[in-house]
Amino acid sequence: MKGITTLRVGDSVDHYLLIKQSTTGVTTVGKPFMSLVLQDKSGDIEAKLWDTSEEHERLYGAEQIVKVGGEIHDYRGKLQLRVKSIRPVKTDEGIGITDLVPSSEKSKEELMTELTPYLFEMNNPNIQRLTRHLLKKHHQAFTTYPAATRNHHDYASGLIDHVVSMLRLGKALAELYPTLNKDLLYAGIMLHDVGKVIELSGPVATSYTIEGNLLGHISIMVNEIAMAAKELEIEGEEVMLLQHLVLSHHGKEEWGSPKRPMVREAEILHYIDNIDAKMAMLNRALEKTNPGEFTERLFPLENRSFYRPTFD
Amino acid sequence: MKGITTLRVGDSVDHYLLIKQSTTGVTTVGKPFMSLVLQDKSGDIEAKLWDTSEEHERLYGAEQIVKVGGEIHDYRGKLQLRVKSIRPVKTDEGIGITDLVPSSEKSKEELMTELTPYLFEMNNPNIQRLTRHLLKKHHQAFTTYPAATRNHHDYASGLIDHVVSMLRLGKALAELYPTLNKDLLYAGIMLHDVGKVIELSGPVATSYTIEGNLLGHISIMVNEIAMAAKELEIEGEEVMLLQHLVLSHHGKEEWGSPKRPMVREAEILHYIDNIDAKMAMLNRALEKTNPGEFTERLFPLENRSFYRPTFD
Amino acid sequence: MKGITTLRVGDSVDHYLLIKQSTTGVTTVGKPFMSLVLQDKSGDIEAKLWDTSEEHERLYGAEQIVKVGGEIHDYRGKLQLRVKSIRPVKTDEGIGITDLVPSSEKSKEELMTELTPYLFEMNNPNIQRLTRHLLKKHHQAFTTYPAATRNHHDYASGLIDHVVSMLRLGKALAELYPTLNKDLLYAGIMLHDVGKVIELSGPVATSYTIEGNLLGHISIMVNEIAMAAKELEIEGEEVMLLQHLVLSHHGKEEWGSPKRPMVREAEILHYIDNIDAKMAMLNRALEKTNPGEFTERLFPLENRSFYRPTFD
Amino acid sequence: MKGITTLRVGDSVDHYLLIKQSTTGVTTVGKPFMSLVLQDKSGDIEAKLWDTSEEHERLYGAEQIVKVGGEIHDYRGKLQLRVKSIRPVKTDEGIGITDLVPSSEKSKEELMTELTPYLFEMNNPNIQRLTRHLLKKHHQAFTTYPAATRNHHDYASGLIDHVVSMLRLGKALAELYPTLNKDLLYAGIMLHDVGKVIELSGPVATSYTIEGNLLGHISIMVNEIAMAAKELEIEGEEVMLLQHLVLSHHGKEEWGSPKRPMVREAEILHYIDNIDAKMAMLNRALEKTNPGEFTERLFPLENRSFYRPTFD
Amino acid sequence: MKGITTLRVGDSVDHYLLIKQSTTGVTTVGKPFMSLVLQDKSGDIEAKLWDTSEEHERLYGAEQIVKVGGEIHDYRGKLQLRVKSIRPVKTDEGIGITDLVPSSEKSKEELMTELTPYLFEMNNPNIQRLTRHLLKKHHQAFTTYPAATRNHHDYASGLIDHVVSMLRLGKALAELYPTLNKDLLYAGIMLHDVGKVIELSGPVATSYTIEGNLLGHISIMVNEIAMAAKELEIEGEEVMLLQHLVLSHHGKEEWGSPKRPMVREAEILHYIDNIDAKMAMLNRALEKTNPGEFTERLFPLENRSFYRPTFD
Amino acid sequence: MKGITTLRVGDSVDHYLLIKQSTTGVTTVGKPFMSLVLQDKSGDIEAKLWDTSEEHERLYGAEQIVKVGGEIHDYRGKLQLRVKSIRPVKTDEGIGITDLVPSSEKSKEELMTELTPYLFEMNNPNIQRLTRHLLKKHHQAFTTYPAATRNHHDYASGLIDHVVSMLRLGKALAELYPTLNKDLLYAGIMLHDVGKVIELSGPVATSYTIEGNLLGHISIMVNEIAMAAKELEIEGEEVMLLQHLVLSHHGKEEWGSPKRPMVREAEILHYIDNIDAKMAMLNRALEKTNPGEFTERLFPLENRSFYRPTFD
Repeated sequence: MKGITTLRVGDSVDHYLLIKQSTTGVTTVGKPFMSLVLQDKSGDIEAKLWDTSEEHERLYGAEQIVKVGGEIHDYRGKLQLRVKSIRPVKTDEGIGITDLVPSSEKSKEELMTELTPYLFEMNNPNIQRLTRHLLKKHHQAFTTYPAATRNHHDYASGLIDHVVSMLRLGKALAELYPTLNKDLLYAGIMLHDVGKVIELSGPVATSYTIEGNLLGHISIMVNEIAMAAKELEIEGEEVMLLQHLVLSHHGKEEWGSPKRPMVREAEILHYIDNIDAKMAMLNRALEKTNPGEFTERLFPLENRSFYRPTFD
Repeated sequence: MKGITTLRVGDSVDHYLLIKQSTTGVTTVGKPFMSLVLQDKSGDIEAKLWDTSEEHERLYGAEQIVKVGGEIHDYRGKLQLRVKSIRPVKTDEGIGITDLVPSSEKSKEELMTELTPYLFEMNNPNIQRLTRHLLKKHHQAFTTYPAATRNHHDYASGLIDHVVSMLRLGKALAELYPTLNKDLLYAGIMLHDVGKVIELSGPVATSYTIEGNLLGHISIMVNEIAMAAKELEIEGEEVMLLQHLVLSHHGKEEWGSPKRPMVREAEILHYIDNIDAKMAMLNRALEKTNPGEFTERLFPLENRSFYRPTFD
Repeated sequence: MKGITTLRVGDSVDHYLLIKQSTTGVTTVGKPFMSLVLQDKSGDIEAKLWDTSEEHERLYGAEQIVKVGGEIHDYRGKLQLRVKSIRPVKTDEGIGITDLVPSSEKSKEELMTELTPYLFEMNNPNIQRLTRHLLKKHHQAFTTYPAATRNHHDYASGLIDHVVSMLRLGKALAELYPTLNKDLLYAGIMLHDVGKVIELSGPVATSYTIEGNLLGHISIMVNEIAMAAKELEIEGEEVMLLQHLVLSHHGKEEWGSPKRPMVREAEILHYIDNIDAKMAMLNRALEKTNPGEFTERLFPLENRSFYRPTFD
Repeated sequence: MKGITTLRVGDSVDHYLLIKQSTTGVTTVGKPFMSLVLQDKSGDIEAKLWDTSEEHERLYGAEQIVKVGGEIHDYRGKLQLRVKSIRPVKTDEGIGITDLVPSSEKSKEELMTELTPYLFEMNNPNIQRLTRHLLKKHHQAFTTYPAATRNHHDYASGLIDHVVSMLRLGKALAELYPTLNKDLLYAGIMLHDVGKVIELSGPVATSYTIEGNLLGHISIMVNEIAMAAKELEIEGEEVMLLQHLVLSHHGKEEWGSPKRPMVREAEILHYIDNIDAKMAMLNRALEKTNPGEFTERLFPLENRSFYRPTFD
Repeated sequence: MKGITTLRVGDSVDHYLLIKQSTTGVTTVGKPFMSLVLQDKSGDIEAKLWDTSEEHERLYGAEQIVKVGGEIHDYRGKLQLRVKSIRPVKTDEGIGITDLVPSSEKSKEELMTELTPYLFEMNNPNIQRLTRHLLKKHHQAFTTYPAATRNHHDYASGLIDHVVSMLRLGKALAELYPTLNKDLLYAGIMLHDVGKVIELSGPVATSYTIEGNLLGHISIMVNEIAMAAKELEIEGEEVMLLQHLVLSHHGKEEWGSPKRPMVREAEILHYIDNIDAKMAMLNRALEKTNPGEFTERLFPLENRSFYRPTFD
Repeated sequence: MKGITTLRVGDSVDHYLLIKQSTTGVTTVGKPFMSLVLQDKSGDIEAKLWDTSEEHERLYGAEQIVKVGGEIHDYRGKLQLRVKSIRPVKTDEGIGITDLVPSSEKSKEELMTELTPYLFEMNNPNIQRLTRHLLKKHHQAFTTYPAATRNHHDYASGLIDHVVSMLRLGKALAELYPTLNKDLLYAGIMLHDVGKVIELSGPVATSYTIEGNLLGHISIMVNEIAMAAKELEIEGEEVMLLQHLVLSHHGKEEWGSPKRPMVREAEILHYIDNIDAKMAMLNRALEKTNPGEFTERLFPLENRSFYRPTFD
């Protein structure tokens, strides 16, 4: 079955789709309607349901999976799905949310396979044990959570995807600048965002938890390291340094780090995080932009528009 | 024996004094000399040693206790101690550093006595047990450390002195604004700066520890709460809220809080801390200022000078 | 008669209500309608009038009092008033605006009774005379105006309500920090916002006057003090100090104070004002929030959301 | 007698000079000395007195006039006065401070003569009467005070000199942009800094008064306008607008204006003030700079250095 | 024919108008409509087309000229054009865009005539030749482009209109402050914004070019000066100084100048630019405002509202 | 001969040294002396000359080469050179400045050899030709100039050293993020700082030129690209994009870039520049720091101190 965003005008639709957003409105003649955003792994598309009832609102809320029949049509320059039939999925149809949300290109297993050798490259036993313990403790969430609710790596397994990409860059930097301590740098990369598995609600329809709002993933993770050290009976500067790398990785107090980087690897960790996030955002935005044109304004990139050159 | 700062020109000196600062210089004719700042509980005074040797530098460094004979004289409008004799204290003279450093007006025992009832006023058992556990664990340091290295409450037992003063103000506010949760507020006041017992080096000649520099008292204390909760097997929102109060008490990211206050008591805790610190700084500066004049510029008060009115 | 906001779905309405806001729209089929916000002392509720004429627009503008019959219904999760009948109030029905706007919990007489002893506690005759003169001069407005057009104390007699609450807090602080000059502090509290009686238009549907916009309540009040001193033939530092307290009470140039606080009581006045305003805003927002949830974003609190704990 | 700054190396000195600054020091062999800055109308020069006593300190403090004999010599690239004889001036020598301080190029009488026609050009009687009243009330100080303690127009009659220069510029602007109200603009220029006659201590060795520090010339002048209006029984928008022009003339809250300009003439007044001040600072700094070189850093010009071109 | 904005309710319309903006919408009953903003030299007015087709969208896009018949009516307090007939203009009707867009009051020829003598007043041959060369090279665009896409001088020939107005002000300043080098100042004024002829798309429906976005008019013009100097074989400080005036004329790095002004004429150029722009914006906004009222908020004037006094 | 900074206390000195800084002072007994900073390739050391004359000042100014005899001694914890004999170098001794200044570890020839393949990897002929032309035009200065006057790469050939290090990092990034255009990125890296060969005075005792101060290396280089394109008759987007990369490489307006990066490679160029500069500064500072200690405050790293861990 072709992805919903790959269809063209006139193509007919007979797809399982996940309702990503559902809002209700009322026309000026008083008739209720619903606006849906429907998605599968390929992306999302808009649809309208007219003359809806409270029953519709109950059945077709966010995070519901539906079977939709209809057709793609052009609505003032933008593709829309004209709904001819819609019904909730049945349990025996075997369609789950993870079948319908975008995710990392590689599977979580492949990503874990790529990550593991970095763990084995670590020479310092304290750093290695702490890192392995924490990744093991949070293994399930670490391999399935997104790294954010939007902007970049905001899909299932986005967190480990981001970490693996950062590790590649970390390795390159450690080779170019041999004064960098690889153990600290790799451990910092692996752990820096693990607190997100508590800060965020989960891989789908991700939102902030109360603890995420009140404490933040940085403080959560600094705690986790302290408790792991206690459990493993590890003492020594490594514990403090890993905590420092985590708590300073946003780079500035204004951006939520209670201390700025004060260790060489902490400074570089902040840069690696930044570059990987920005490349992800730029690639996503420029892919949707024609050569010779500008992207829409990108809020997390200081609201800039980027230009896509006419040559490759 | 009268305090060193209470003496007047011509008074003779025969005092035990603590060397607070010691710096060496060289005159333009190449002769070495030393500038000392000497203190007892009453405050400090300057002195010079001329034609000094390396032996002098070894004997008269900071934190040494000395017996000094000499006289007070006026050096261009400022009192100075003209040294006639100086020698290191002997062990059998029974003089310790704590005999010579300023400290809170009340003893640490009196302060603890004033603090205790606030603990008993707490109704929420989780909050009470966590707070008691942490104060007990750090009791020795909590009752002897300063609250800062300079500016305010920068003397032995300054930390508990600041806490007790804040508790008084917290009580008044809780009465005026009954929606405030007294348990949370009192616990927040008691715990907010306890991390300083790890951030700072001790009650005398206080400096920052490495851990203090790299993690900061806020993150240190958030960890302490997490570990105490684990040890006491306390679960529930109270743990998270106490952590939030501690981590947000500087009020803004720029001031080192990774999250701004997002709970009513956290907002008020920040104000109480601020008012008590500012009153301490203002009182110290205005005491030294004549009516009808301005204080020197006070850096932690945004470099302002304050005016002391001519009437009371 | 129960307040409009205390009714539940299905309850019938037969109330006098004040039109707080009135806007006109047009449906896409070209039919005009009106959206009203209707209030009584308990708060406000929305209502729609369909197929309206210019006559309707004339009759049902903001600040009109109306008699409305109808029913409470649920409109997509929010209570709305379904209007069955509506007519302007008649003069002989004896309903005035003040019967329908929220106001301080205590009456202005009670508030004045609570304020008066603070005046008598003042020992400095210059300060006392100036303060009494100015409160007397503006008595009528001082006891009926709000303290602001929105956010906090934005109701009839909100100004004196705010002042009395600040006096209570000022008294507590003056007891805890005895170096504070009570006369100056109390006078500063009473006078700091009196300029609002010229800056704002009045107790109902409050807006800024031209003078309010161009001069601001701070400069207006500094003038008032100067003129009062001249009239009473009071000379001496007290006049200047009261002017300073008023002009510095916003705390920073960016917030409209041409000078920052440079007197101990001025610094504390700024804090008292802040705490009382913030407690009022927090209480209002948290009251409407369920335990375990966050308030909406509060713009004057730096756009933060506050969390309401699940326990009291 | 040639001005002190016009002399060259080897020229002998036999001048009356005013001590602008006097500081005492002590050599490392313990001998006291004094550093003097001596001035006449042409500018100032440094001198040292060696082996001084308390008697010297008493006689040769700031603001004393002295008769000095000696010689100009070069001290590492800078001219210095080598003192051979020095004594206080005698009363019968008829030398006053005003003979020795720099002042505006034109006399205060000439400046007043240039200012007066602008008063007569005003058509609005309220504005004219208010302005004349205030200039008359403060005539003596207005014509002799500096406009600042340093940076620009910091000399006797600097205030009126600045005002007259601004009036010339105001006239040019009013001709180019005829929508500007000349009455308001001229009155704003004349009055904007008159509060300095209370903010500053006087024409010589100028410092800030207590009132200047606590209230500032802006609030002081807004009061003056209010009181003048009362005395002259002038009512009407003109009073408020003149107050607005004065209080907004610093342009931004951060720069001490409680309101930003909100009237066309207020906006332009701020620019005129700025341009005239900056031209005065630039001219002063560039005059001392050789073509092809940069001035020293100019703090009030955001610490910039300015380049003086090699051609005129 | 009277301008479209001078007509009153009930007047009939039979005008050639330029479509300034065209947007499509859909009513809640699914019917498409179009909103047009139609303009002639007098300004613009709104109109709606109901029940539109794709044909309409094609014919009535932005920058199309149309012949419209209809009537002015009042739509809730605002004038609107009720369209009875509309058709595209025919080529033989001889109506061009420039007949329908606002432009400077004076013709470009008059403006050029006013500008020319300033060129002849220049004494420095390098400066004069460079300036003449560049104005000649870009003559066509320089005399027809706007100075901006909105806010001020945003109409045909707005660029030269702004320059001529600045020259008048520059002349006045050079007379008042004779240390200013007139050649540099006049050349700086003439050249500072010429880069806009490449940064902007043209005199009508002006937008930013790609080069404008990526390089900006400042860098573009600095290049132009370098290339002109090379072509004319002019060497010497004048080239660098003109480049400096152009690149610093925004005054601050935050406003897009890579260097702040560091030459006297550069500092003044920035002020002249600012004053002329602000007067244009203030005049435009205050003209539309009744005496005794405030303008709407003006975004480029830091979002301030300005008051129009009740007297002239 | 061992480098001057490798000697220990008591070692005798008989070295050619370059005077890096020379300042004159005067003792309080009136005797002139000179403080010298003397350097060779290994670094620098302080020395004093006592009882100096104007002859000394003439002979021993900055940038002079001298032959010095003496001894290393310890001056309060810091090594100093006690001068016993000093004389200017003679021309026939064959010692030049480049023998005595620090430089890149690799020779400029080696660096050029490492750079060249990156030029050949470029596929886009326009980019390649422009880059080669500009490197060739400035070859001599590009291979010998420092990249800055202090902080990092502030030694002879520091510019090309920095560029080669950035190219290595650019290559790694281009491999990890294949959407990056290697041609643009490499050319941007090579050209971004070439303007420094005009902004700075040369490889030794480097200062800013007048053109450097008034235009800055960014605008200078944007011009150079424009002129090269004209000379080579290259048209097309590549010219504009290279100019954009150069002018945006400081990343923000506040840091001197008139435009922020708006092309993917521009964004990454800014990061590469930053990382390479910061690693150089961190390595230099941490090398001088013992394990377990903090570096001095590093101004260009936001004044932070960095910690050197106790383990490798």
